[in-house]
Amino acid sequence: MAIEGRDETHARRIRYGMVGGGQGAFIGGVHRIAARIDDRFELVAGALSSTPEKAKASAAEIGLDPARSYGSYEEMATAEKAREDGIEAVAIVTPNHMHFPVAKTFLDAGFHVICDKPMTTTLAEARELAAIARASGKVFVLTHNYTGYPMIRQARAMVAAGDLGDIRVVVAEYAQDWLAGRTEDTGSKQAGWRVDPEKAGAGGAIGDIGTHAHNLACFVTGLKVERLSADLSSFVEGRRLDDNASMLLRFAGGAKGMLWASQVAVGNENGLTLRVYGDRGGLEWCQEEPNKLWFTPLGEPKRLLTRNGAGANAASTSVSRLPAGHPEGYLEGFATIYADAAELIRAADEGRAPPEGLALPTIEDGIDGLAFIEACVASSKQDGAWVAL
Amino acid sequence: MAIEGRDETHARRIRYGMVGGGQGAFIGGVHRIAARIDDRFELVAGALSSTPEKAKASAAEIGLDPARSYGSYEEMATAEKAREDGIEAVAIVTPNHMHFPVAKTFLDAGFHVICDKPMTTTLAEARELAAIARASGKVFVLTHNYTGYPMIRQARAMVAAGDLGDIRVVVAEYAQDWLAGRTEDTGSKQAGWRVDPEKAGAGGAIGDIGTHAHNLACFVTGLKVERLSADLSSFVEGRRLDDNASMLLRFAGGAKGMLWASQVAVGNENGLTLRVYGDRGGLEWCQEEPNKLWFTPLGEPKRLLTRNGAGANAASTSVSRLPAGHPEGYLEGFATIYADAAELIRAADEGRAPPEGLALPTIEDGIDGLAFIEACVASSKQDGAWVAL
Amino acid sequence: MAIEGRDETHARRIRYGMVGGGQGAFIGGVHRIAARIDDRFELVAGALSSTPEKAKASAAEIGLDPARSYGSYEEMATAEKAREDGIEAVAIVTPNHMHFPVAKTFLDAGFHVICDKPMTTTLAEARELAAIARASGKVFVLTHNYTGYPMIRQARAMVAAGDLGDIRVVVAEYAQDWLAGRTEDTGSKQAGWRVDPEKAGAGGAIGDIGTHAHNLACFVTGLKVERLSADLSSFVEGRRLDDNASMLLRFAGGAKGMLWASQVAVGNENGLTLRVYGDRGGLEWCQEEPNKLWFTPLGEPKRLLTRNGAGANAASTSVSRLPAGHPEGYLEGFATIYADAAELIRAADEGRAPPEGLALPTIEDGIDGLAFIEACVASSKQDGAWVAL
Amino acid sequence: MAIEGRDETHARRIRYGMVGGGQGAFIGGVHRIAARIDDRFELVAGALSSTPEKAKASAAEIGLDPARSYGSYEEMATAEKAREDGIEAVAIVTPNHMHFPVAKTFLDAGFHVICDKPMTTTLAEARELAAIARASGKVFVLTHNYTGYPMIRQARAMVAAGDLGDIRVVVAEYAQDWLAGRTEDTGSKQAGWRVDPEKAGAGGAIGDIGTHAHNLACFVTGLKVERLSADLSSFVEGRRLDDNASMLLRFAGGAKGMLWASQVAVGNENGLTLRVYGDRGGLEWCQEEPNKLWFTPLGEPKRLLTRNGAGANAASTSVSRLPAGHPEGYLEGFATIYADAAELIRAADEGRAPPEGLALPTIEDGIDGLAFIEACVASSKQDGAWVAL
Repeated sequence: MAIEGRDETHARRIRYGMVGGGQGAFIGGVHRIAARIDDRFELVAGALSSTPEKAKASAAEIGLDPARSYGSYEEMATAEKAREDGIEAVAIVTPNHMHFPVAKTFLDAGFHVICDKPMTTTLAEARELAAIARASGKVFVLTHNYTGYPMIRQARAMVAAGDLGDIRVVVAEYAQDWLAGRTEDTGSKQAGWRVDPEKAGAGGAIGDIGTHAHNLACFVTGLKVERLSADLSSFVEGRRLDDNASMLLRFAGGAKGMLWASQVAVGNENGLTLRVYGDRGGLEWCQEEPNKLWFTPLGEPKRLLTRNGAGANAASTSVSRLPAGHPEGYLEGFATIYADAAELIRAADEGRAPPEGLALPTIEDGIDGLAFIEACVASSKQDGAWVAL
Repeated sequence: MAIEGRDETHARRIRYGMVGGGQGAFIGGVHRIAARIDDRFELVAGALSSTPEKAKASAAEIGLDPARSYGSYEEMATAEKAREDGIEAVAIVTPNHMHFPVAKTFLDAGFHVICDKPMTTTLAEARELAAIARASGKVFVLTHNYTGYPMIRQARAMVAAGDLGDIRVVVAEYAQDWLAGRTEDTGSKQAGWRVDPEKAGAGGAIGDIGTHAHNLACFVTGLKVERLSADLSSFVEGRRLDDNASMLLRFAGGAKGMLWASQVAVGNENGLTLRVYGDRGGLEWCQEEPNKLWFTPLGEPKRLLTRNGAGANAASTSVSRLPAGHPEGYLEGFATIYADAAELIRAADEGRAPPEGLALPTIEDGIDGLAFIEACVASSKQDGAWVAL
Repeated sequence: MAIEGRDETHARRIRYGMVGGGQGAFIGGVHRIAARIDDRFELVAGALSSTPEKAKASAAEIGLDPARSYGSYEEMATAEKAREDGIEAVAIVTPNHMHFPVAKTFLDAGFHVICDKPMTTTLAEARELAAIARASGKVFVLTHNYTGYPMIRQARAMVAAGDLGDIRVVVAEYAQDWLAGRTEDTGSKQAGWRVDPEKAGAGGAIGDIGTHAHNLACFVTGLKVERLSADLSSFVEGRRLDDNASMLLRFAGGAKGMLWASQVAVGNENGLTLRVYGDRGGLEWCQEEPNKLWFTPLGEPKRLLTRNGAGANAASTSVSRLPAGHPEGYLEGFATIYADAAELIRAADEGRAPPEGLALPTIEDGIDGLAFIEACVASSKQDGAWVAL
Repeated sequence: MAIEGRDETHARRIRYGMVGGGQGAFIGGVHRIAARIDDRFELVAGALSSTPEKAKASAAEIGLDPARSYGSYEEMATAEKAREDGIEAVAIVTPNHMHFPVAKTFLDAGFHVICDKPMTTTLAEARELAAIARASGKVFVLTHNYTGYPMIRQARAMVAAGDLGDIRVVVAEYAQDWLAGRTEDTGSKQAGWRVDPEKAGAGGAIGDIGTHAHNLACFVTGLKVERLSADLSSFVEGRRLDDNASMLLRFAGGAKGMLWASQVAVGNENGLTLRVYGDRGGLEWCQEEPNKLWFTPLGEPKRLLTRNGAGANAASTSVSRLPAGHPEGYLEGFATIYADAAELIRAADEGRAPPEGLALPTIEDGIDGLAFIEACVASSKQDGAWVAL
């Protein structure tokens, strides 16, 4: 069994820098591993923390050249632009409120941008950033990383091929329990900013994980949510943002949906699941067992499709690194975002069309994500009135 | 390992008759097996079909005395009342629209009633029937049979004991796929009446299976749904009743919920699941694996509680017949409803309080069920406005 | 969805008596429920315990006519033979060592016999009993009840139809943990006789549960074990019979197998599983989720076949009572043994061939079971030498 | 949630070269990714294929400096030794028969060695290599990669801590189906050498995957297999090595075991499972869901322990990169072998003891693996006689 799909075919690594991702952070380390897995990127610069001391210590810890460890992202943009061997792209892994200014700065300076989600903290910012990005001619990739899972790519291709027929019902969930108590009082940096509207934006659970569920539902079905009716709650005392959100969805074209995002569902770790039902078949997938996809053609027994297994299609095998039964996980899915981003960046730099089959979340998805968050908040404030996205 | 809980300790079987349940029916046969399992009932009379020929043939098939196979339920009520060895109770297993007249007739005639759900086709009828039942002094049992599953009894007792703390979120689902196509055109008697508002009432999926999910959520949590916002769809062309329903729930006391009932979710057979989350723990249960209950105390690993296993409590062991690991199923859960009904009936006949620990769905649950159905229909007609139950 | 397969089509119930199954017993209650489920039998007599007082109390508890509650099985055979309305069949549910004398007595007296497994405590007895049974012209049914599970019937039919091609490998397990400690010291009647060679015979775990795994493997594959190499252990201090047995199997025709029976495998309740692999496909089944059968045709995705679901064949649907997704369990599988036994008995009484499609364990299976047990003991004593069955 | 355990704290990457792993190979690509994930290694040289053209093309494909892409491993050893910036370690990822000569060459030349399993093709070679390695003072790491899974580390620590009490029974399996047909005739390079005794050694399935199951059983329990009785089969026509192996095990200290390795079990991808039962508890783990570990303390409900979840211990969290519920997979487990190897290498180079908590497979495990393979072959040839390891 040969390692299939993603391998290390490449001319030269893309030099990139990172903003955020210092000590105590979570997603920065994930981005760095993801960037290394397929060996298409090389981290050469960083503004890893807004606290200079911490930035320096963090850089040392990961072996970054001290000369290219910057005290601020603005400084990094300027300095790297001036270098012959400067970065070509930046990865933005800060709390949400910094996504916009950092992305704007680096796009303006002519760098490609890989940005964590949600893209910004407001829809207005998202639209502004989209305009900047389009005008820049640079690549902008949003790391809705779950779209990188091979069986999610397979599901999307199956829906597109009509294997499910007309989509009728979509059920998306993202259930966690790590904020079931007052985690923000324990000194957790992760919890701290996520429950703070100044840093996270208007959405708590909906911004942090609901957007992933929303994005995944749209990515797989190819449908857009037209209207939603949401009920947001903050169950933990003193919490200002939602920690539980339930909603009804109506998709363009007539499909109906439900979405549940919760950070207080005791017994759930990262329970992101997607179920899609059409008039010819159904698909079910769960992030905690990402190598499996359940497919039931109408009137036939349920089938277990596995990554690189007998029922795998090109959309999944092309982003798969291991034979069936050797599980790939979260980091490999994330790595696929980076590998695809490398293809986009090289194509953009060389002025050619990117290869076919890429399926990266775009700046449009970023806008949709913020529209989703704002619609949730608006609907909930109006006692669940249907709000258009 | 001794057979525990339910056994055959009894003085004398209760004589009962059945209305409905002739050839081609489904639930009648289930009631008969359920009544036999614990040997507390004896079927001695029947009006098994509204078609006399079919009633006769059906009676012969199950070995019923031809003299006590009646052409109509009215005839049966009258004739059995006149016999010294007449029935003591009646089981009503007709399509929904007949529940009310049949139940009324037999209550009026002084019989105990075991009635399938939903109790009636309208809330007004349900209330009327409740008044009749209360006035009669007779036992009225509604076969929300899923409440008979041992691990559901266990879950209810655990919630009542505070193992989950204050309930925050309830997610209930009942997903099927047998009506994903035009099953009603295939000659299926089962499908035929269920999609016909004259026979099923105002609810399609919500009446047939949504009420089960609603009932189960309330049974386990001890909470009442105060308001709901529903979105009903009829996906299959030409269908007059809903075949997919999604809704948001608000429980008295502040818990939030979601409920999904679908008969077009391809790949689901009888996917009735219940998830309950409180501030101290979470519970998860699925009807298709009814001997298992997942319990996560906050901050501890998830535990698999099994029927009669190490973590079983008295509420489940007392309604369990087999050692752990030998699966009990749907019929045994249904049998528990009958066994409990026998206790109620004997107690009523003897003018004493029933034994403790019974947990039967009552006529109040029947009212709640119809209130639920009507609220769903009303909310959906008002584009999802919150409707009080 | 109509209740399919087994229903109550019958002329008249078969009158039967029971030997064993008094208070504190396990399997007697199971037989009684199983006999009631499809309504083909009526319990009218019993010698429920070898202790007269207990026999009487047990009979009263289950509502047996005191006049037909006997103090000994010999008395019952004689008295019932003399009655015009005497029993037609007997169910033997005693500890193993009584199977032979009781079965012999009732066969000699002209009754049909339904006997729990293992058939006797020695192979010599088994052969003797087989000769008696054959000579008697009476029906002898061995309750290897797991063969009554619909998906086991389906698996057998699939193998017979060649869906798996030539069988290569069979892996059978039956893992429990209820004897992991000194359960026999806790007053458990169940444990007490099972660890006593005088009552259980030469096999502990192999006799109690290993025979089930062996029988199931043969039942499904249609193959016979030709030779085996076994390693028996008694892990719990002071235990005289094996509580863990592992063995290698060689089937006639060249298939290889493994079998593991354990009563000390902490975390296993009734983990009876069977996996069968041929050159064209594989099947996997687990008793704790009996409504599911996993089938993988070579080179295709794994399929989940469910009882009465899309992929169900006639062998399973004909012994199924409920629609797919409403679980049937252990008692229903056991009931199928009784329902099939009723067909055999009626056919024998009427001197006609039984209907096609019955698949009951026979007296030959009983001989095979004892041959298996004795081969295990012999092989283990010879340090795992291959022993022919 | 911070990324825990493994991160990128390091001074300088270890320069390494690779022998084998050219185009069409599988495990070479895995090693390269594994080495990159934690950023402790840098690939700077290679003899990627014994075919010079292929070596060159393979090197180009992965961006290796052409000057350091060698035509033979001997050339690489000599040339790299002469360079100031030469490699410090070599990764050997060739078919089995080359492990010995390559490892010997590089150890002799003073390099650390990371070698795929099985260590050699004969026990004699394994012992010789062990002597060479010990004399060299260099680090020798055997990539029994499954030992790098966090929950396997946790299981090992739990057994060592006595959570299971005295171990009684161990059941290990590794079931695949990719060789169920004549895969070797399809041009698969992977299949080709694995079924060829000249390249694979005396073991087919036992050498390729049985050794993994054996190693894992010993790694987790801390026990050694003392004797085994094996039955090897070659089911596919014309195959010279075993493609199915079943065996009984006896561990030093009295525990019993079973081991099954199959490459013809249709429906199994990489079904490596381990079950361990002691007198105080049981553990169950499956490679295809590696983030889960099932633990049952005697007399308590089964618990689901998850990587970085509530029940995780230091042995697992210290080798974990992601929060609970974000699955890590095969590559991360493999990466842990590399990360631990980096620690060992640095410690060896600096003449200090390695940090505590490393749990790498050693050259002793390599000897045990070959002893296992040879014992299997010997036992099977003697019709399953018990053979000492």
